[in-house]
Amino acid sequence: MWADFEALSAIGSIGDGGVNRPSLSTAHLAARNWFASRIHDSGLELRIDSAGNHSAFLACDQPGAKTLLLGSHLDSVPHGGRYDGALGVLAAFEVLRVVKEMGERLLLHLEAIDFTDEEGTLVGELGSLAVAGNLREESLHSPRGGRAALVEGLARAGLSEAGLLAARRDPTSLAGYLELHIEQGKRLLNTSSKIGIVTAIVGITSCRVIFTGQADHAGTTALLDQRNALRGAAHFAIGFWEKLEQDFSRCVGNIGNLQVIPGVFNIVPERVEISVELRAPDISLLTRLEEMVNELSHRMAERFQLGVSVEWLDRAEPVQMDRIFQDVIVNACRDLGFAFQHMASYAGHDAQALASICPVGMIFVPSVGGYSHSPREYTDWQDCVNGANVLLEATLRLARGDLG
Amino acid sequence: MWADFEALSAIGSIGDGGVNRPSLSTAHLAARNWFASRIHDSGLELRIDSAGNHSAFLACDQPGAKTLLLGSHLDSVPHGGRYDGALGVLAAFEVLRVVKEMGERLLLHLEAIDFTDEEGTLVGELGSLAVAGNLREESLHSPRGGRAALVEGLARAGLSEAGLLAARRDPTSLAGYLELHIEQGKRLLNTSSKIGIVTAIVGITSCRVIFTGQADHAGTTALLDQRNALRGAAHFAIGFWEKLEQDFSRCVGNIGNLQVIPGVFNIVPERVEISVELRAPDISLLTRLEEMVNELSHRMAERFQLGVSVEWLDRAEPVQMDRIFQDVIVNACRDLGFAFQHMASYAGHDAQALASICPVGMIFVPSVGGYSHSPREYTDWQDCVNGANVLLEATLRLARGDLG
Repeated sequence: MWADFEALSAIGSIGDGGVNRPSLSTAHLAARNWFASRIHDSGLELRIDSAGNHSAFLACDQPGAKTLLLGSHLDSVPHGGRYDGALGVLAAFEVLRVVKEMGERLLLHLEAIDFTDEEGTLVGELGSLAVAGNLREESLHSPRGGRAALVEGLARAGLSEAGLLAARRDPTSLAGYLELHIEQGKRLLNTSSKIGIVTAIVGITSCRVIFTGQADHAGTTALLDQRNALRGAAHFAIGFWEKLEQDFSRCVGNIGNLQVIPGVFNIVPERVEISVELRAPDISLLTRLEEMVNELSHRMAERFQLGVSVEWLDRAEPVQMDRIFQDVIVNACRDLGFAFQHMASYAGHDAQALASICPVGMIFVPSVGGYSHSPREYTDWQDCVNGANVLLEATLRLARGDLG
Repeated sequence: MWADFEALSAIGSIGDGGVNRPSLSTAHLAARNWFASRIHDSGLELRIDSAGNHSAFLACDQPGAKTLLLGSHLDSVPHGGRYDGALGVLAAFEVLRVVKEMGERLLLHLEAIDFTDEEGTLVGELGSLAVAGNLREESLHSPRGGRAALVEGLARAGLSEAGLLAARRDPTSLAGYLELHIEQGKRLLNTSSKIGIVTAIVGITSCRVIFTGQADHAGTTALLDQRNALRGAAHFAIGFWEKLEQDFSRCVGNIGNLQVIPGVFNIVPERVEISVELRAPDISLLTRLEEMVNELSHRMAERFQLGVSVEWLDRAEPVQMDRIFQDVIVNACRDLGFAFQHMASYAGHDAQALASICPVGMIFVPSVGGYSHSPREYTDWQDCVNGANVLLEATLRLARGDLG
């Protein structure tokens, strides 16, 4: 697994410890080709579905057996880290190789899967939504990464929108989904637990807040006479952070981008588009966050005499991890002697999409410094191995039918 | 002149009353070709210098006569208006045609000139700085529009950097420079004067303020743990506008752009580059403005634990219009019966660059609504004609040696 991790980390490497493998970029496709060739080397079966999801498959000989999915994703955010996604795919692949070597007869087929576009450079959880049959055509028409990027990426990968929409699997064929992932926060470090057992994944919603004022000569138009879209945007941003701190301690929000049009030195900004993302552990909080953004946008538009529109993009509801899967992971940790704790995930994962069609569970390992979506992302290798062993143990328990 | 104005307004038209003719763009070069063909039609001499400045030339028969330049520019800001620059070039051209038709023997050569890149899509006052011999090589190496845009523009126009740097004219050959321009503000409208006589042009300086924090996963990194470059930038922007309102009533400033890197929904902004422009009517105020930006940037960087750098770009010093030229314009207004007022220009003009080598004067006409650098830019045609008549009358007074 270490050799695989080193080889994979070199693909899309940006020289500072990070990788740049946005979904369906050349580097991402190179990582997938590498994975396919490693599957070939392992003697496992390579499967690629019409959403581009790449899998290693290990069949059991039980008639009518269901499949237990293990996996994560090989794409990264732009200039991201080596562990997010990659660790989960490599550990799943390693589990299948170990199980194959063990030669034990199990009750479930095992599949180590790399899902397409988890990170949302294009759509977000694209491959897992497709497998769950929950990919909406609208998501393809106005994806958060822009329509052009999606069309180009699909062409580069030899994929089609029709294929994406047809990748649904029969839910009765699936026994569940297990994913190993780095925590991407500091809670495990703070408590010195070795393993996090995820209870729920926060809901995520995103929108574009667009303020529209008037382009004017920046030298001759007095500040009070301006309808300056950037003034509305800057005050919106500060109000947003203040509200989060004061009223939403269990939620998080981010302003990831702010695009100014026309964006030149000597013209009063006419239009500013703000990219907003919101996360909350339950639906009522997520709805309150959305209301806060709507209210704040309109208040700032009024204050600065601007037009405003709030375009809501995809919303992923908060989802609960399966209770039996959580207990199986608890038992795996106890067998292996690892301190663990239950925790919510503030990052989105493919498990979210799959929860609508099968039981899902997630295993977290500590992130040094809590860094994530950054080249600084780092997890001690021993923690990675611990996590892979918990994944193996939990997989064997599920595949043996040992849920006690 | 009306027919010319209509024909010119159609070149680079964007369908909403505005034009898009950034310097050396295809549309701008089309406007220059049109101007060259109109000069040809008029029987005036066409001159093009090595900075790409296009002129109509009308020689007088005095031995050793100097040249009086009249003019402005045919480039626009991106999505700008029809009047800014265009009016001054067309009026200058019309003056030469009228004088030629009059057949009067004058003491000065007359030249109606269209200066290259006044607006600063590439460098700013590029053609007039070149004529004044004040174009610095550094300005070409790191122009405010970016090096790539300059190189592409010059190639498109068949110009070279060596040519730009060699376009200096002998100051002893020039009698002065007169420019008609729309006011780009509301002061003439507010006082119902028909003509503004410019006393000084504000100094302009610009910089990039760059805040650097740390890219992190937006869901898992608590706001208090973030080093979010956008927080520094938003608070800088609001502090900047507050300072301008409180302490710099005679100055203006603009934040024209704000670029967020990496600029995606789910990553904490690592780097934000802010485009700042400052204008002040005298040097000490301009220097105080620069100090304010430096101080505020560093204060915000400290507050939000960010790195910061402030990169100062070109600085144009405030310049005074020639007293004699101002008086000549006063007399022209009195002869024609137009109410006038003296005023500073808060916009930059080629007269700024030329003031270092010859006397300069400027004539303003009212801007409806004060709109400028916008498709909404509008001046009553009668006001345009009035301005052109003042330009003609002032030109005749100067070219006859009638300065009384």
